[in-house]
Amino acid sequence: MVVTGLIWFYNEYIESGEFMNIKTQRCLEIAHSQGVQAVLVTSAHNKFYLTGFTGTTATVLVTDRNQYIIVDFRYIDQARSQCESSIVLLSNDNDNTIINLLNGIIESEGIDIIGFEKDQLTVGEYDSFKNSVKAEMLGLNFNELRLFKLAKEIEVMQKAADIADEAIGYIMEVIQPGMSESEVDLLLYNKIRQLGATSFSFNTIVASGWRGAMPHGVASDKIINENDFVTIDFGAVYQGYCSDLTRTFAMSKSADKRLVEIYDVVLKAQISALEACKPDVTTKEIDKIARDIITEAGYGNFFQHGTGHGLGILIHEAPRLNQLSTEVLKEGMVVTIEPGIYIPGLGGVRIEDDILITKDSYIRLTKSDKQLKYIR
Amino acid sequence: MVVTGLIWFYNEYIESGEFMNIKTQRCLEIAHSQGVQAVLVTSAHNKFYLTGFTGTTATVLVTDRNQYIIVDFRYIDQARSQCESSIVLLSNDNDNTIINLLNGIIESEGIDIIGFEKDQLTVGEYDSFKNSVKAEMLGLNFNELRLFKLAKEIEVMQKAADIADEAIGYIMEVIQPGMSESEVDLLLYNKIRQLGATSFSFNTIVASGWRGAMPHGVASDKIINENDFVTIDFGAVYQGYCSDLTRTFAMSKSADKRLVEIYDVVLKAQISALEACKPDVTTKEIDKIARDIITEAGYGNFFQHGTGHGLGILIHEAPRLNQLSTEVLKEGMVVTIEPGIYIPGLGGVRIEDDILITKDSYIRLTKSDKQLKYIR
Repeated sequence: MVVTGLIWFYNEYIESGEFMNIKTQRCLEIAHSQGVQAVLVTSAHNKFYLTGFTGTTATVLVTDRNQYIIVDFRYIDQARSQCESSIVLLSNDNDNTIINLLNGIIESEGIDIIGFEKDQLTVGEYDSFKNSVKAEMLGLNFNELRLFKLAKEIEVMQKAADIADEAIGYIMEVIQPGMSESEVDLLLYNKIRQLGATSFSFNTIVASGWRGAMPHGVASDKIINENDFVTIDFGAVYQGYCSDLTRTFAMSKSADKRLVEIYDVVLKAQISALEACKPDVTTKEIDKIARDIITEAGYGNFFQHGTGHGLGILIHEAPRLNQLSTEVLKEGMVVTIEPGIYIPGLGGVRIEDDILITKDSYIRLTKSDKQLKYIR
Repeated sequence: MVVTGLIWFYNEYIESGEFMNIKTQRCLEIAHSQGVQAVLVTSAHNKFYLTGFTGTTATVLVTDRNQYIIVDFRYIDQARSQCESSIVLLSNDNDNTIINLLNGIIESEGIDIIGFEKDQLTVGEYDSFKNSVKAEMLGLNFNELRLFKLAKEIEVMQKAADIADEAIGYIMEVIQPGMSESEVDLLLYNKIRQLGATSFSFNTIVASGWRGAMPHGVASDKIINENDFVTIDFGAVYQGYCSDLTRTFAMSKSADKRLVEIYDVVLKAQISALEACKPDVTTKEIDKIARDIITEAGYGNFFQHGTGHGLGILIHEAPRLNQLSTEVLKEGMVVTIEPGIYIPGLGGVRIEDDILITKDSYIRLTKSDKQLKYIR
């Protein structure tokens, strides 16, 4: 899939055609800036990012000279075909254990210190590596590895967003009072699969009526009523990358008028925050724009989560957009903007888009209409 | 759902009716045996096990006096309704941070050492807790917490297994040459959802023809042919518990005769290993029974994974049944028995059941027929 109008500002990467190598370079930059020569990568998402490997079991070591992926017999063919830019090593339970293979590389490349993802490696894994690896182990802050999306990633994320847009449009056509939230969830799942997604990005939230007051109201057996507002928050995973889209709509004109009022407030907050997004604005400022509008309308106590978050391979990545965050938006970041208001006993409204920060501004990846829709 | 014939051997628990408390007692026994008075529980599966909480964000502290669950505003109603046996505390970003709430409990209960799940807490989380919690932190081996299933858990796991049985039966009725593996996966998903499952236990393996040689061949776009053997390995999550079922079948009589021969070997290995399962047999012995049969038939090099694993809330739990494992089967364990043979270029066969170890023997939770089936 080609997305015209998006690719231009990463021409340098497109021309090189070596996405993997740029990713590996970023990994090494992070490592060097924290004083280490090599990085042991154990998280599934960073292994996928660096090597392209989609299996469940592998150990990756990135050094100044090479990128290695160690797999057992179950994944050897898959690793050889997926990990073009890596040296694939086969481990077994005898001589070529993972540890022995790692130590072989450590010795042959003269590595003194190995960094690891301190927010991924467990204490137990750390103890085990520390006692067997012939190098010092140092925990790295690795949150920023995937912060700036490459053109190829943006292409794939645009497709994930397109799938979400098409799927929510379909749901708004077929949803009827009398369906359960869970039935809607299943219709949505079939639609995203039909459109090429491999899975949901997370457990889909379908929160109708009073359940709309639960920001994380995963689809339940509750029957959707004619008077309900319905909030659907879901995402599609396409080629390993997530989208994240929320729309709230009314099942009919008989919905509570207070929710219609709340919808207008949330929409204003969402659009205002969105329109402020551009490089060099702090994430805290974006959050404040949405929060101030909601607070001025008298709903400040009913918006208790952040305004958004980065996304990519994971549904929640750096940066965070909330009252405490200290990050700054930069070209190439992909973030959500998703303010909401939740009134216990009444219901709630949330509206969410995914955007890409561009050189001077932003581009919406999700494009679904945001005017309040009445299903009947 | 009531499963007659299963519940009897946990009468003591049934009569007490306090599953949560028994689980908490086990947690404390593990803690005390490793020298600590309280346990910080951070993994989703152990939080669910101990408290019943199904949300994504919570911190649990188990002490000799109480079980606490700390949640933010998003999950407060959910925690209050799900966590009957826990004291629910509401955290915020101001005074009542998670750390302040933990320290309040630590001080009021006079706790000196807090244990944590060393195979779950990341090094980063550990550093953060260690620097702010007013007690010493000690990593615990927690693998055995969920090792022995309670009657209520077995009931739910039997239902998860029933769903898998019914779903594979349905697939064998509807599968046709010309369908893609991915289409079969989607049919299976819809069936398990229709039967009450919330999700698959893991990414479903549908490996047809040559892909059958990949033990972890997640459903792809490959079209299933009339000559193919098809291996389907999947599970249903029902009320938070997993089943795990594998069946291999032939699309028609025109399948390669070598695969039919391999099927017989795997079936013999699976049944022989299964029938040896009872209390006090080592997991290594069970593995050896399956492995010896496969090796004697000349396929030893083509069975390179373990014979089975425990399952429950997670798809892989203690114990493991392989050549290196040192555990012993005991009443109340639920394990899979799943030998296989994989021949590159030709295909593969795996047959898997879930069983419960009983007082003298075992009970099969999955009951699907195991004779080789030809679809047409």
